[in-house]
Amino acid sequence: MKPSIPKGTRDFSPIEVARRTYIFDTIKRVFQKYGYQPIETPVMENLSTLTGKYGEEGDQLIFKVLNSGDFLSKVDAQKLEAKNSKSVTFDISEKALRYDLTVPFARYVVMHQNEIAMPFKRYQVQPVWRADRPQKGRYREFYQCDADVVGSESLLNEAEFVCIYDEALSNLGLQDFSIKINNRKILTGIAEIIGKPELIVDMTVAIDKLDKIGYDGVVKELIERGFTESDVEVLRPFIELKGSNEEKLAVLKQSLANSPTGKKGIEELETIFSYLTSFKLNKATVELDITLARGLNYYTGAIFEVKSNEVQMGSIGGGGRYDDLTGMFGLKGVTGAGISFGADRIYDVMLELNLFPESAVTSTKVLLTNFDAAAEKYALPILVQLRTNDINTELYPASAKLQKQMKYADAKQIPFVVLIGEEEMQSGKLTLKNMQSGEQEKLSVEEIIKKLK
Amino acid sequence: MKPSIPKGTRDFSPIEVARRTYIFDTIKRVFQKYGYQPIETPVMENLSTLTGKYGEEGDQLIFKVLNSGDFLSKVDAQKLEAKNSKSVTFDISEKALRYDLTVPFARYVVMHQNEIAMPFKRYQVQPVWRADRPQKGRYREFYQCDADVVGSESLLNEAEFVCIYDEALSNLGLQDFSIKINNRKILTGIAEIIGKPELIVDMTVAIDKLDKIGYDGVVKELIERGFTESDVEVLRPFIELKGSNEEKLAVLKQSLANSPTGKKGIEELETIFSYLTSFKLNKATVELDITLARGLNYYTGAIFEVKSNEVQMGSIGGGGRYDDLTGMFGLKGVTGAGISFGADRIYDVMLELNLFPESAVTSTKVLLTNFDAAAEKYALPILVQLRTNDINTELYPASAKLQKQMKYADAKQIPFVVLIGEEEMQSGKLTLKNMQSGEQEKLSVEEIIKKLK
Repeated sequence: MKPSIPKGTRDFSPIEVARRTYIFDTIKRVFQKYGYQPIETPVMENLSTLTGKYGEEGDQLIFKVLNSGDFLSKVDAQKLEAKNSKSVTFDISEKALRYDLTVPFARYVVMHQNEIAMPFKRYQVQPVWRADRPQKGRYREFYQCDADVVGSESLLNEAEFVCIYDEALSNLGLQDFSIKINNRKILTGIAEIIGKPELIVDMTVAIDKLDKIGYDGVVKELIERGFTESDVEVLRPFIELKGSNEEKLAVLKQSLANSPTGKKGIEELETIFSYLTSFKLNKATVELDITLARGLNYYTGAIFEVKSNEVQMGSIGGGGRYDDLTGMFGLKGVTGAGISFGADRIYDVMLELNLFPESAVTSTKVLLTNFDAAAEKYALPILVQLRTNDINTELYPASAKLQKQMKYADAKQIPFVVLIGEEEMQSGKLTLKNMQSGEQEKLSVEEIIKKLK
Repeated sequence: MKPSIPKGTRDFSPIEVARRTYIFDTIKRVFQKYGYQPIETPVMENLSTLTGKYGEEGDQLIFKVLNSGDFLSKVDAQKLEAKNSKSVTFDISEKALRYDLTVPFARYVVMHQNEIAMPFKRYQVQPVWRADRPQKGRYREFYQCDADVVGSESLLNEAEFVCIYDEALSNLGLQDFSIKINNRKILTGIAEIIGKPELIVDMTVAIDKLDKIGYDGVVKELIERGFTESDVEVLRPFIELKGSNEEKLAVLKQSLANSPTGKKGIEELETIFSYLTSFKLNKATVELDITLARGLNYYTGAIFEVKSNEVQMGSIGGGGRYDDLTGMFGLKGVTGAGISFGADRIYDVMLELNLFPESAVTSTKVLLTNFDAAAEKYALPILVQLRTNDINTELYPASAKLQKQMKYADAKQIPFVVLIGEEEMQSGKLTLKNMQSGEQEKLSVEEIIKKLK
């Protein structure tokens, strides 16, 4: 029997865990700096909590957990005979694995509404599961890394999200990335003045291709997607929108002058940009992009998306404002906004750019060799002394040939080895070997501690 | 619709996550110090990986995941008609939630045997799921916190496990706890000289009651459990075993003189104790306890159990050596040893003893008030300055009455509030309020930073 793991899932080796922890810790640290606090929710939610929240396709992708015990006993015999999997599902399954962190968060806010202080700023870094077809970079189990605030309409939150992206990704070593920002109300405004709200997404998809297919290509596609020649005339300033954020805003102001919703969207963007003049960014470029339509059914105000400009990769973050997070659980009038970091993609970007510091990987700092019982006995108090000085130390657990012990240190990427042989025991000067340079020095224990701390 | 969560599962609030993180980080730090490295395995394992590993009762308690899509289509119609839940399970479910961290670790070692360096020392802190009846302190989703070494017979590992328990629990603030140690071979030895190996567990259960029911009570129970009068005579030294570890070992040596296995067990214990004379312990008491029979079907050498002596509570840790971890997956001859920390119980002990430091809880350090647009504008650069100095800072996101903002700071346990009113803006001296003492001071931003860092 050859063991395996379910497709779309992964084991993480020590070096991978260390690197992932480095990413998560860096992001969490920034979340905390901005007043966000951690919560954790159970991996299993009631199936009824999750169904109907992700559309019909989403419902299919939820992993359901089989009821315990004699789960078939109460199922209608005819249903079973008909082999109606869909309707039997709810008879034999009451629980499911969470599909994202947003619905559990909404459920949490409603269940704990009497304990939490509004505005409630929470972050959550936990895995989610989707029965998607696995492919390169898409897994059935993956971590989400979310920060959301509920109970505050203030656009300061949106501005701070931009800062959080900037600070976290800069701290991780990214040198060049764009935080794209849009506002759902601008898209609604454009749809308003054309009178085709149902074509918003088609419009953004077509306009987004300007760089690839040129103005004529976009026009052709717009027509194919159901716009008229006169619609295209109205859309012209939006298709050709370019320049700095200020220049874009000026054009939008003019073009959306007759749409109250559109004007509201522009106003919101201006407020966010105004906050950002106070918040000096590190490495991020903020870019108004009216083709950004991510999660359109969901967002009601700002929409964010983050992309690396150093590596070809999908978005490494996204989010926005949603006006009614908890309505699905009967608590009305709670507005919220949130962002998410795509940890798996950030991992790939950092690997490609070689951004993981060595300190994020090393675990054991020094290995003490073990050649025989006398040397082991000699090594024990040294082992204690090094550990007391907070130096991660191992004593090779049995006497063995030098080569075997060096191989162990190499495989584990232990940077230093202390050789304890006859000569060392007599002189009290131990041989410290730097595994990378190969350099060796004779040092006392105190000198070794000083060197390694 | 009132949302709820599955029974036996829990939401963790910010303060709970912070405290749990404090426990996990403290333990992980010690694991690393002793050369253990983290791995992570998927929440879902193939059902075939898990079944047959935990006994028949255990198999019942595994949460199974329903196959996606039309899961009934290929199921035998007669099986469905007969409503045979047990046999249908394997037709409609191929995956399951992990039940512990040991079997996934064994699976990991076998799958990754060509990448890992032996001895392989890994730790793993992840949740597991069991469909047990939930009760006080027993959950269906709970974290395990394990360290195991495979591929090393050295008893140095066992001695270091004692140190790890000692250091981690001492670092968490526990002042008085016992690490009980036994050896499976001693129990086997006793059974050998009586000739009733099948009664080992009965024997340990009866002897364990000496303090409660006295010598005569233990003898009565031994007879009830199937021992003869002459068995009891042979068992006498084991029942009456007391004194220091050295005294106990002396008695055992005499009583087990004719059992080669028993003598081997004593020798192993002596080696461990000998290592421990080099490793000075902090707060732990190490106690040889021959009634310790924890996981008897499993362990082949040392057996550990840890108990707090300050709080009435079940064991807060346990482990031992097992000679054939990976045999179940076809890789023979890999010996291992491991320990586990009971994080939920440690949490309860620490809460009862008030051991959580404030630093493990606080998130936002200071709140800047927001009374109107002018004050907000004034506050923005201060907000940036504080954060640049790595101080977790929030600006109340909208102008509001003082009382509301103070209530927010209170609810979130924010220790400092900076009041920014007319006077403060004019003088440049801000009012820093200590929320615990109520004390207020007028300080410049630089002075505030100095004070809060």
